[in-house]
Amino acid sequence: MVDISRPARERLLQLMRIFEKHIRAGSGGMITSAQVEHLTGWSRDTIRKDISFLGKALGGNDGATVGGNAGYEPEMLVPLIRKALDLNRRRKFCIVGLGRLGSAYLGFTPPELAEFELAAGFDINVNRVEILASSVPLYPAYKMAEVIGRFEIEIALLCIPAGAAQNIAEKCVAAGVRGILNFAPVVLRLPQEVMVRNVFVVDELRNLSVNMGNLSQGLAKG
Amino acid sequence: MVDISRPARERLLQLMRIFEKHIRAGSGGMITSAQVEHLTGWSRDTIRKDISFLGKALGGNDGATVGGNAGYEPEMLVPLIRKALDLNRRRKFCIVGLGRLGSAYLGFTPPELAEFELAAGFDINVNRVEILASSVPLYPAYKMAEVIGRFEIEIALLCIPAGAAQNIAEKCVAAGVRGILNFAPVVLRLPQEVMVRNVFVVDELRNLSVNMGNLSQGLAKG
Repeated sequence: MVDISRPARERLLQLMRIFEKHIRAGSGGMITSAQVEHLTGWSRDTIRKDISFLGKALGGNDGATVGGNAGYEPEMLVPLIRKALDLNRRRKFCIVGLGRLGSAYLGFTPPELAEFELAAGFDINVNRVEILASSVPLYPAYKMAEVIGRFEIEIALLCIPAGAAQNIAEKCVAAGVRGILNFAPVVLRLPQEVMVRNVFVVDELRNLSVNMGNLSQGLAKG
Repeated sequence: MVDISRPARERLLQLMRIFEKHIRAGSGGMITSAQVEHLTGWSRDTIRKDISFLGKALGGNDGATVGGNAGYEPEMLVPLIRKALDLNRRRKFCIVGLGRLGSAYLGFTPPELAEFELAAGFDINVNRVEILASSVPLYPAYKMAEVIGRFEIEIALLCIPAGAAQNIAEKCVAAGVRGILNFAPVVLRLPQEVMVRNVFVVDELRNLSVNMGNLSQGLAKG
């Protein structure tokens, strides 16, 4: 694992998405740096610098080996990004909480998701588990520890109410989960070796709002 | 609007959430810096520095006016954070796409959401609009421009398939939307004055995965 800064890593993930889409669309050949700039809004210099990390990270000499001035080769870059970001192992994940949000993700199958394996869904409501249509096995919540251990599930999507989230997150971790994508609007307290990413809609709205505030002030002056 | 860095702003938002919860729980009085450290995982110094921005940002002398060594006064700090982050205006938002994900957010009502007003939901499927139970008015997609304009809706939650997202996002913006929370796994190309935040589940999983990769290597050595 090479040392790539978090912002650079997040940009590389987005670049990978764009390159993958280019490949899937059968566009073929290079994608120009102008196109990438247009699609991302990031400057060519930033993109070139991020890509140049790959050369270094993977033992090459510099960015020139993976991207030139004219553009980038998606077919060549996607595997390099995957390798640099250590995305080649297919990890298993589960969805905990099969209400509207959880069941939405049960049916969510973008092509990129293929690199993760949705192995199970859990809900405390046994009826819901029996009634929901799903191509993935669903279990009542009391089987969580056993199923997570047996399938070696590493990641949990927590789609449960805030009040239950801390307790259920701890149960996931006790069963072997090491990464949690938390949709419950609550800050989880977990051992620091457990990775947590939060999707807090209210915070996202607030964040948009803060930036829009800046905008309207700017416009008022303009 | 004061100049608070984005990471500091995001931490202040989370601090605000913690303080609000403290108030709602009726815990009363101070919250100690040790408690805040425990709840967030951030160091006391980081927290103190973020809080001290508030004093400066709002024209005070320094952080000592809003938080001391012993702890913080949530009742006093929440309004200061709201003011510093310009969160006092209640903005209207809408949900575009009422499939499982969109309809999940239709029923999502954490107390903090009260500072935003969910004004409308839209879906291209007229049946769905008629059948869904909702306390908020729902409209067929062709009424989007009119309703967004009439209600002065500023923010849209895009909960639609990737293929339709760019086109629908442009329609939202043409109607007056200035902030988009995008759940469709696609990078939107919009005028730069429109704020976009993406919730890409695959990227979140990848991001967890990358960090977990670090962990297992660390543990293997330990």
